[in-house]
Amino acid sequence: MGVSAADAVIPACAAVGIAFALWQWFLVFRVKVSAYASVAPRAGINGGGGGRPVFRPESEIDDDEDVAIGGYGEDEEGEGDGAAAVARCAEIQSAISVGANSFLFTQYKYLAAFTAVFAVVIFLFLGSVHRFSTDSQPCQYTKGKTCKPALANAVFSTIAFLLGAVTSVVSGFLGMRIATAANARTTLEARRGIGAAFATAFRSGAVIGFLLASLGLLVLYIAIKVFGVYYGDDWEGLYESITGYGLGGSSMALFGRVGGGIYTKAADVGADLVGKVIADNVGDNVGDIAGMGSDLFGSYAESTCAALFIASISSFGAEHNFAAVSYPLLISSAGLIVCLVTTLFGTTFYKVKTVHGVAPALKLQLVISTVLMTVGILVVTFLALPSKFTMFDFGEVKQVKNWHLFFCVTIGLWAGLAIGFTTEYFTSNAYSPVREVADSCRTGAATNVIFGLALGYKSVIVPVFAIAVSIYVSFTLASIYGIAVAALGMLSTVATGLAIDAYGPISDNAGGIAEMAGMSHRIRSAALVSLALFGAFVSRSGMAVINVVSPKVFVGLVVGAMLPYWFSAMTMRSVGSAALRMVEEVRRQFATIPGLMEGRAEPDYASCVRISTDASLREMMPPGALVLLAPLVAGTFFGVQTLAGLLAGALVSGVQAGASDHAKKLGPKGSDAHKAAVIGDTIGDPLKDTSGPSLNILIKLMAVESLVFAPFFAAHGGLIFK
Amino acid sequence: MGVSAADAVIPACAAVGIAFALWQWFLVFRVKVSAYASVAPRAGINGGGGGRPVFRPESEIDDDEDVAIGGYGEDEEGEGDGAAAVARCAEIQSAISVGANSFLFTQYKYLAAFTAVFAVVIFLFLGSVHRFSTDSQPCQYTKGKTCKPALANAVFSTIAFLLGAVTSVVSGFLGMRIATAANARTTLEARRGIGAAFATAFRSGAVIGFLLASLGLLVLYIAIKVFGVYYGDDWEGLYESITGYGLGGSSMALFGRVGGGIYTKAADVGADLVGKVIADNVGDNVGDIAGMGSDLFGSYAESTCAALFIASISSFGAEHNFAAVSYPLLISSAGLIVCLVTTLFGTTFYKVKTVHGVAPALKLQLVISTVLMTVGILVVTFLALPSKFTMFDFGEVKQVKNWHLFFCVTIGLWAGLAIGFTTEYFTSNAYSPVREVADSCRTGAATNVIFGLALGYKSVIVPVFAIAVSIYVSFTLASIYGIAVAALGMLSTVATGLAIDAYGPISDNAGGIAEMAGMSHRIRSAALVSLALFGAFVSRSGMAVINVVSPKVFVGLVVGAMLPYWFSAMTMRSVGSAALRMVEEVRRQFATIPGLMEGRAEPDYASCVRISTDASLREMMPPGALVLLAPLVAGTFFGVQTLAGLLAGALVSGVQAGASDHAKKLGPKGSDAHKAAVIGDTIGDPLKDTSGPSLNILIKLMAVESLVFAPFFAAHGGLIFK
Repeated sequence: MGVSAADAVIPACAAVGIAFALWQWFLVFRVKVSAYASVAPRAGINGGGGGRPVFRPESEIDDDEDVAIGGYGEDEEGEGDGAAAVARCAEIQSAISVGANSFLFTQYKYLAAFTAVFAVVIFLFLGSVHRFSTDSQPCQYTKGKTCKPALANAVFSTIAFLLGAVTSVVSGFLGMRIATAANARTTLEARRGIGAAFATAFRSGAVIGFLLASLGLLVLYIAIKVFGVYYGDDWEGLYESITGYGLGGSSMALFGRVGGGIYTKAADVGADLVGKVIADNVGDNVGDIAGMGSDLFGSYAESTCAALFIASISSFGAEHNFAAVSYPLLISSAGLIVCLVTTLFGTTFYKVKTVHGVAPALKLQLVISTVLMTVGILVVTFLALPSKFTMFDFGEVKQVKNWHLFFCVTIGLWAGLAIGFTTEYFTSNAYSPVREVADSCRTGAATNVIFGLALGYKSVIVPVFAIAVSIYVSFTLASIYGIAVAALGMLSTVATGLAIDAYGPISDNAGGIAEMAGMSHRIRSAALVSLALFGAFVSRSGMAVINVVSPKVFVGLVVGAMLPYWFSAMTMRSVGSAALRMVEEVRRQFATIPGLMEGRAEPDYASCVRISTDASLREMMPPGALVLLAPLVAGTFFGVQTLAGLLAGALVSGVQAGASDHAKKLGPKGSDAHKAAVIGDTIGDPLKDTSGPSLNILIKLMAVESLVFAPFFAAHGGLIFK
Repeated sequence: MGVSAADAVIPACAAVGIAFALWQWFLVFRVKVSAYASVAPRAGINGGGGGRPVFRPESEIDDDEDVAIGGYGEDEEGEGDGAAAVARCAEIQSAISVGANSFLFTQYKYLAAFTAVFAVVIFLFLGSVHRFSTDSQPCQYTKGKTCKPALANAVFSTIAFLLGAVTSVVSGFLGMRIATAANARTTLEARRGIGAAFATAFRSGAVIGFLLASLGLLVLYIAIKVFGVYYGDDWEGLYESITGYGLGGSSMALFGRVGGGIYTKAADVGADLVGKVIADNVGDNVGDIAGMGSDLFGSYAESTCAALFIASISSFGAEHNFAAVSYPLLISSAGLIVCLVTTLFGTTFYKVKTVHGVAPALKLQLVISTVLMTVGILVVTFLALPSKFTMFDFGEVKQVKNWHLFFCVTIGLWAGLAIGFTTEYFTSNAYSPVREVADSCRTGAATNVIFGLALGYKSVIVPVFAIAVSIYVSFTLASIYGIAVAALGMLSTVATGLAIDAYGPISDNAGGIAEMAGMSHRIRSAALVSLALFGAFVSRSGMAVINVVSPKVFVGLVVGAMLPYWFSAMTMRSVGSAALRMVEEVRRQFATIPGLMEGRAEPDYASCVRISTDASLREMMPPGALVLLAPLVAGTFFGVQTLAGLLAGALVSGVQAGASDHAKKLGPKGSDAHKAAVIGDTIGDPLKDTSGPSLNILIKLMAVESLVFAPFFAAHGGLIFK
């Protein structure tokens, strides 16, 4: 494949992806919600008179197998009055949208301030590598050639960081907007049957998936082309500064996840404890959708950046073979096309007719996308790569053949499928693990939580082995580049995965695939992504060996393994205290608002939303600071060896934390068993939804930050340990 | 110090320790419990008519500050009837003793079978290193000399293993017997006032502490002398085979902890859930006391063995300087004398008069023993060691001065004090962390558990930093030998620590030092002990570098970090299902035994005890097998590099797990807050008492097993990874 071919294929695929997203959006948008009632949003978003919110997309596992889509099926007024239902949906959608917008815009103000400060830090640290000199330098890897000054890398890294941050925020925001609008439409379509609801929900997910994947690819491609105008032949510098893009994406994702997670869980825990009195839909949208969007964008950007950086110092990088260096981008491009075809299966060729058809349909999606992608990888590998080349391997070079890389990408892809199915086994109430946990509710909350925690611990075993095998094979075949492309393989079907995730809340109720089935393996991709970034950092710092049995490294390892616990302590405590304040507020309202208990008066939703907002924005700062400062402190004061130990420790410890609790609900409402299950669920939620996903960002973010700052640490780091 | 001096000092100190233990035992035994009523034990051990056991040494934090020693102070019949109280105490003590004996002897049958099988495995694996040849071999480290055949090492390692196993079991059994007898006496003495109760409880703890420490030292010393008759000048072989002693001690400790832990927690969880209907005193004694005794003995034996092995391949080992090689034993000897003096402070010179004097008195003990021991280390270091020598440092040699080692031991000792005080801060209800958790009970069990888990995570931060600093300093000063002696420093005041632990249940109620304050730092010593063993294993396998950025090592690291979770999943699930069966049994009894609900009939205790026993003995097998097989499988099939990664991963991940939950009780009984606290406590217990302590044994046991099998792995390991 020539340069021109790569230059044609990548933007074309991105454009096709965006066009497809827009087409799917058009199909979803044909469901009208605003025609009947375009009223102004009310203060509260609980349209019904009862204590239960009318519209609640989060799933509830009930004994009955009714499809209670969006909670709407449980509403007493039911399906009779079509116009009224549409009007209420529009009203609720509008209220959620207003609430989510308000939260996100407040959050963005904080993020803008952070981004500005951190951009200055990046510029100053990287600029100081050669004391802000504007002279060109000898290249680090391409011997005998001259590269651009460190100051240029500082400037372009900062620009890439800002670009990544903006793209991440836009991705999250668009995801939230689409999800908010789509939820109401899914609810309405459910009245026409499971097939229509399936198609609408699935399409909405596809919109988010394709938009994120295409946008990430396109912005990165354009950035490379534009930066290339300045860098010319200096590909080392070009792809080194591009890594800032991953840092920007990932740091926004952390704050999005943590802030959104605390928000949604504070609302949720509060709601669970006092019996679903307040609606936590805003939280679902800002936490789950916006957070997940930013998170996946971050993973995608980081693994691509790591792969590109390593590629640039390989033999085809030295030969300036653009098609070969763009291999990571081409894999993602192929992924978009594969997902497009797979989505057509899900919406056009294969119609879901019954509730029981949902789970097989979603599993089929996973399998189809994986099989097609294997073919896609094969094609891209043999077209883009020379048959033989050498990769940088920690100071040495490794002979690699193109089919080696095919295996690296493919093993990541299939490990993802294996993890997806394993997670389904451990989270679906169709199988014995969850049934056992549910059964333990009979003897109280304590046994429920013990079983839930035990199951959570147990569910990491198979994924860790799958990750370990992927690491061993890809590491052995193509060193750190193998890891990076294995991560890309796992992420390549991201668009299909997101479509499935968006369908999770419905399919969960249908007794099928759980919401984590699709998401989990992309979360697990964090292990591969961070290892790739870690390897790139080690390479960039000029280290060949990270010796465990040396004091500096071992100390880093021990402290690094502790960081996920420290971080979890912070976030869980934040969730706990936010929930505590929420519960007290709700109790206060019951005590002071006359008629509230009997359902004759409206609760003061605004003050509840304010408590969640305040708590999440204030509380996201300390854990964020911990993650961002740890590598800077370790690298600056203790040097790159200790920092490498720290990253490895955080990586191996944090990767275990993806699934922490699986307490599930069982029993008729009001029974002791059901109460026990609610307690179990309330405890499990902060572990599963706030700490767990954030830990994956933690390990990636620390690694990408270390990579970006590697030139500084290598030049000036280690103030204490000589 | 000459050979003869060391030969005089070590057995003399051990003898003094044993004599002191016996003297303290005599003082405790003067309190008569059997004079009045030497009745045969009844089937049940609940003497009162109410639902609450009369005698319950485990503490309950109540709002009031009454000293409810052994729960006795809460008994309605109170202090009036002296003779009746003494009679009941005798009866209860006898019943507990019978129950504990019965459990332990059943357990010992299983352990005997395991030990026999594992001894054969050790002999076959190690014997096969040179195909069971009886020819002498060239030494590995002392170049140009001839060492004993591998077959001899196989024989003596097996003997050392058996010796360690027997000593461990005896330590645990004696500890249990002493604790059982002492508890009743403490309860009776409490009627005479806090001072007398303090002295009795403290002395009983001292008996256990001095007996364990002296016994461990003496047996090891005798083994070295006896093995030395055969080995003569071959110190490499001598101290290599001595490491089997640590393996024996540690494997018994694992089964003791896991089996005892499941037993006690099954009984406890069951009791908590249904309102303290059955007594779980037997569990307290077999789990906490016997388990802890074996555990500490294991740590002590392992760190000494690791230090001795490294010493034997140092310059003074090559010079056959027995006093210098015996430095670890001399440190322990000094520790015995220091603890003896400290104990005299606690019982003779400084009398506790009020409840509020308890916590300061215990803290004073910790400080006094630490200060005195610092002097002891100084004396031993300058008497036993040459001023300059070289230590083996992963294929290289490190120049070390004697005062370097003084710092290594001392930093371990003081890190232990720091960890002890930190743990007290996080576990005592005198300080804000626990108060905050207690406060969260007001809003339900879920917030209580969330706060408790968060606090548990948070409480690892300072200890991990203390461990990290100790590791860095001692590793840098004297390589792996520094780590081993730092661990010994932390363990050197073990006798005083055990005396404090035994006092925990009383002092806890007195609002003072929590039961973990003394114990925690010795549990944390597991990190140093395993690192020392790990270093010894790496040395013995002839590796100089364990490179994190190599596929084999990294795969081991990831999988190793997962093992503690896998292990926890197994043990927690075991506790959960045992508790489940217990609850169902209790409910069955309430339903089928007429009059039980009203307190007119006796419950069927025997079937409850049987459920706990069966569950714990059956369920200790799978986690035990996991821990023992993981290193064997990794070493045999994947080689020493992967095994090293596995050990490092398990170490850094497992060390975080020492404290997992700190949910505490608050509120008047029967209130919602109190119910929430009971749920929180029930969830926290299996984490804190079964999984947590066992994880420390897990990381030590895997490391010592790898060390013992190192010759086999180095010779024949790595079947899959070439």
